[in-house]
Order: sequence, then C-alpha cells, then structure tokens
Amino acid sequence: MNLSFIGLGIMGKPMAGRLLEAGNDLYVYDKNALSSIKELESKGAIPCKNPKDAAEKAKVVFIMVPDTPDVEEVLFGDDGVEKGIKPGSVVVDMSTISPVATRNFAERLRLKGVEMLDAPVSGGEIGAKNGTLSIMVGGKEEVFQHIRPYLEILGKSIIHIGKNGDGQVCKMANQVVVALTMLGVAEALVLAEKAGADPAKVREALLGGFAQSKILEVHGERMLKGMFIPGFRTVLHRKDIKIALNTAQELCVSIPGTALVHEIFNALIAHGGADLDHSSIIKVIEALAKKENF
Amino acid sequence: MNLSFIGLGIMGKPMAGRLLEAGNDLYVYDKNALSSIKELESKGAIPCKNPKDAAEKAKVVFIMVPDTPDVEEVLFGDDGVEKGIKPGSVVVDMSTISPVATRNFAERLRLKGVEMLDAPVSGGEIGAKNGTLSIMVGGKEEVFQHIRPYLEILGKSIIHIGKNGDGQVCKMANQVVVALTMLGVAEALVLAEKAGADPAKVREALLGGFAQSKILEVHGERMLKGMFIPGFRTVLHRKDIKIALNTAQELCVSIPGTALVHEIFNALIAHGGADLDHSSIIKVIEALAKKENF
Repeated sequence: MNLSFIGLGIMGKPMAGRLLEAGNDLYVYDKNALSSIKELESKGAIPCKNPKDAAEKAKVVFIMVPDTPDVEEVLFGDDGVEKGIKPGSVVVDMSTISPVATRNFAERLRLKGVEMLDAPVSGGEIGAKNGTLSIMVGGKEEVFQHIRPYLEILGKSIIHIGKNGDGQVCKMANQVVVALTMLGVAEALVLAEKAGADPAKVREALLGGFAQSKILEVHGERMLKGMFIPGFRTVLHRKDIKIALNTAQELCVSIPGTALVHEIFNALIAHGGADLDHSSIIKVIEALAKKENF
Repeated sequence: MNLSFIGLGIMGKPMAGRLLEAGNDLYVYDKNALSSIKELESKGAIPCKNPKDAAEKAKVVFIMVPDTPDVEEVLFGDDGVEKGIKPGSVVVDMSTISPVATRNFAERLRLKGVEMLDAPVSGGEIGAKNGTLSIMVGGKEEVFQHIRPYLEILGKSIIHIGKNGDGQVCKMANQVVVALTMLGVAEALVLAEKAGADPAKVREALLGGFAQSKILEVHGERMLKGMFIPGFRTVLHRKDIKIALNTAQELCVSIPGTALVHEIFNALIAHGGADLDHSSIIKVIEALAKKENF
C-alpha cells in the first residue's frame, strides 16, 4: 500500500520507519528535518516536496507534527494535503492537538470526500521505536477498521474511543490525569522528606494502597533519583495541558487543578526545565520549600 | 495478653473486635459510643471508665480517635493514659494525626518509660472489619517487632517506615497523592464528557497507560456511576489534608496542589458532600462547568 508520512521528528521518524520496514511504499515529508528524510530515503522511502505532493502519492496520509497550527498548515496551507488528496483517501493525524479544531478539520476534509482519523499516541520515543504506543482513535468505525492494520504496526494498545475528535479528547484527559497525579506525587515526596521520613520508603509503602499509580511507580522513582532525562519533555506536556485549558474555556468548563499544573510547568520552564522529563516538576516543589532566605 | 482499645467508632469498633476474637483480654473505652461498648462487652470485652483506667489494665494501649486534639486528650487529659500507664508499656496510636504532634507525644511518653508507635491505617471500614488494612508504622524497630503480631490481626500490609512520626508522615503523603490523583481524574472525566466523548471509554483507555491508578480504577468508576456511598468520607479526607497543610506550614514547605484540593473539599462540604465518599469531588467540578446562567 502507498502511504505518506508527514512530520519526521522524534516521534514521526521512528513511526515512519516502522511502516517502511513493514513493507509499505512510503512517501515522506518534513519541512525541516533533512537528516531524517535522508535516513528514511536510504531505507527506501521517497521524499516529497510538500504535503500536497505527499497526499497525491498515497491513499493514507499520516501526520505527526507538534501542534494545532502545524496540522492546519499541513492540511490546508498553500501546498497542503487538501490540494493534492484524492476522494476516498484517509488522513490519520497522530499529533496531539485540539479536539475542537480536529472536528473542524475532519468536516472540511469530508467536503472533499476524504475521511480523517485522529489518533494521538502516548508512550514516547521508546514506544514509537518499539511499536508499543497507546493509540486513542476518533473517527468512523469503518475507517478505523480500514486503518487498524497500520496502527498495529505502530502501537500495542489501540482503542477506538468514538467519533472524530474523541481520540484527542481521550489524549487530553490522559494528560490532565498524568499532570495532576505527578503533582500529587511531587508534593507528597517533598513533604515527606522535609517532614523527616525516607521518601523512598514512603513511595514503596504508597504503592501498596490507594495512592498506587503508574506515575508513582515510574516517575516517583525518577524524582527520587533526580533522573530527568526524557521520557516526555516538560514543554510538550505544557503544550498538551494548554490544549486542555483552551478546550475547557471554549466549552465553559473550569478545571482549576489543571490550570495550577500549567502555572507550575511555566515556573519549571522558566528555570530551565523545558527539555527535562516532566517528572522534574518536583524541582519546582523543592524550590518552593525553605532552603535559605531570599 | 491484656490489651486496651480507646476509641470505638466506625474504625475502632471492628478493629477492637478483631483483637478480641483473636483471644486477647480486651479493655475498652470510648467517651461516647455506648452501643459499641455494649456490643463489645457482650463478646467479652471489659469496659473502662476512662483512658487512665484503660491504661492501668493493659501492657499495650491502642488508640483510634478522630484527630490530633482527641489523641492529646486521651493521652494527657485529666484522666488520660499518661496518668495510669506503667513503664514498659506501649501506646499504639492508629489515628491519623499530625506527625509533628506525634513526635511530641512520643517524647512525653518516653519520659514515663513508655514507648509509642504511630500506626495510621488506610483501607477504610471494610479493611477494619476484614483485617486487610494497610498500616504505616513509625517508632523504634524493637517496639515495632514486639507489637507486629497484633498489627497482623488488623492489617494485611504492615510497613515500618522509620522513627516516631514517620508512619504519620507516610499516611499524610498517601492522602496528598490520593487527593490530587482524584482531582485529576475528576477534571479529566468532566472535561471529556463536556467535550463530547464517552467518559467510560476514556477511563477504560486511560487505565492502559501512564494515567493508570488505583483511584482511576476504583473511584473513577464511582464517579461514572454517581455512587458516592463511602468508602471514605469527604470530611475525613479534608481533615487529613488539613494535617498536611498544617505540617507543610510548620516546616516552611509550599504544596499548592494540596491547598487547592482542600478548597475544593470545602466547596463540596458546603454543598452537602461531607458524608459522601471523597470521589464526590467530581460533583464540584461538574458544578463549575456551564449548565445554565446564574
């Protein structure tokens, strides 16, 4: 099958690589990542000159770019996918972007006879390389079933949540839960240590009860060891949290805990944490506690 | 062995009952719960007229009362434990109270030749009845080993965290993590629903990734079903959060997420949620979202 892949960054490059290794004819485009294009070309991918070109070549167009405006530009920009794509094709947007914008994009593509799936992922670079991503899908059931074999090359847990945008809603909910759980773990570990207990023992005890979480297990350990190699970068989690806050505002929903985490991520980024793992949020909580006077 | 148990409320009564059924001679006291005293008496427990009296009768004195001032009154009040207890005895305080106060109480008892363990629990009324509590213990290792057989009658997971007060620190950390995880789950589920996705599907998908937690599993389901029979009452979780905030203040630690949850619990209690399960926090988040104009 002819596939296109647009966006060859930290996530997109290994994902495109897996689709290629699975024996698909792969057309690739990225507006910047020349070395990624060369690397994929050396493995048999065919570079395209713009998203329009990539869309003309394939029946399924995958997109993996940073944010909502990037997806909009790829789809509807001057040399966008919309200009080249044929009716009956499918766009699979695996970026993490606004669910409201996603529904708008899906409507606009449908006018051209093109179906779209939103299929944001979690699992990070390692998941992208190993094909163990969690993929949360929004869009029509029959389109999902049609595209599923490709998603299975990329991920381990592939769940169809509902209609267009629902995959993005699920990802957004995921990022909200992860952020607040992480804040809870950070505050608890700092408080425990300042209160004179061994935070490692506390974490161990907490894993056996209602405080148990994947975050306490994985990111709690990173916090204790001060190991903040990403993983998932703070700046990207802040972006995802911003999507949740913007969506909440559009829908007249108030999510005060999420808003607080956003501010704490701002402080973390202000002090050099942008490219650290998001579990480095504990550095902000540590910095808030007494060490010395101003 | 002669044991005393002071505080026969929702948790204390079944815990005392288990110690009795295990064949110990049990002396009991509660300043209010006359029906609980009668019930335990009918099973062989011996009622005492005050904490002093209860302490005179036994080598190990268990305490399970609501809050820090209650423990202080039981220990050091007019007819308190301190007045009756013999050197070489052990006080096991299973209440959830201030770790700072706990260390002070342990010091004061040590002056009388009495050792203390702080041994707060999690697992609720069901855990108390079934002997499946998690027990987080602070105090000297040899005292812990001496008392352990009794704790094993009451709990399943019994962890010695460290010195006096460290059990309370661990419980406090537990309550912070649980509260913020719960807030995250509540905000995510409300946002997902308002954004048009099926929150049950979202919860299911999230359980497979980094958003996984015991809270998402157990309390997330309660939220979806609107089943708020406790479980653990909001008013008690607010009390525990208040202990964390007070401790943080004493130690010059800032825990903004925990402070926010405390305010949200206040709102929940203001609107009749005091005796609902703490997962009813979602009702506050739902109430914050648009339904109709003021």
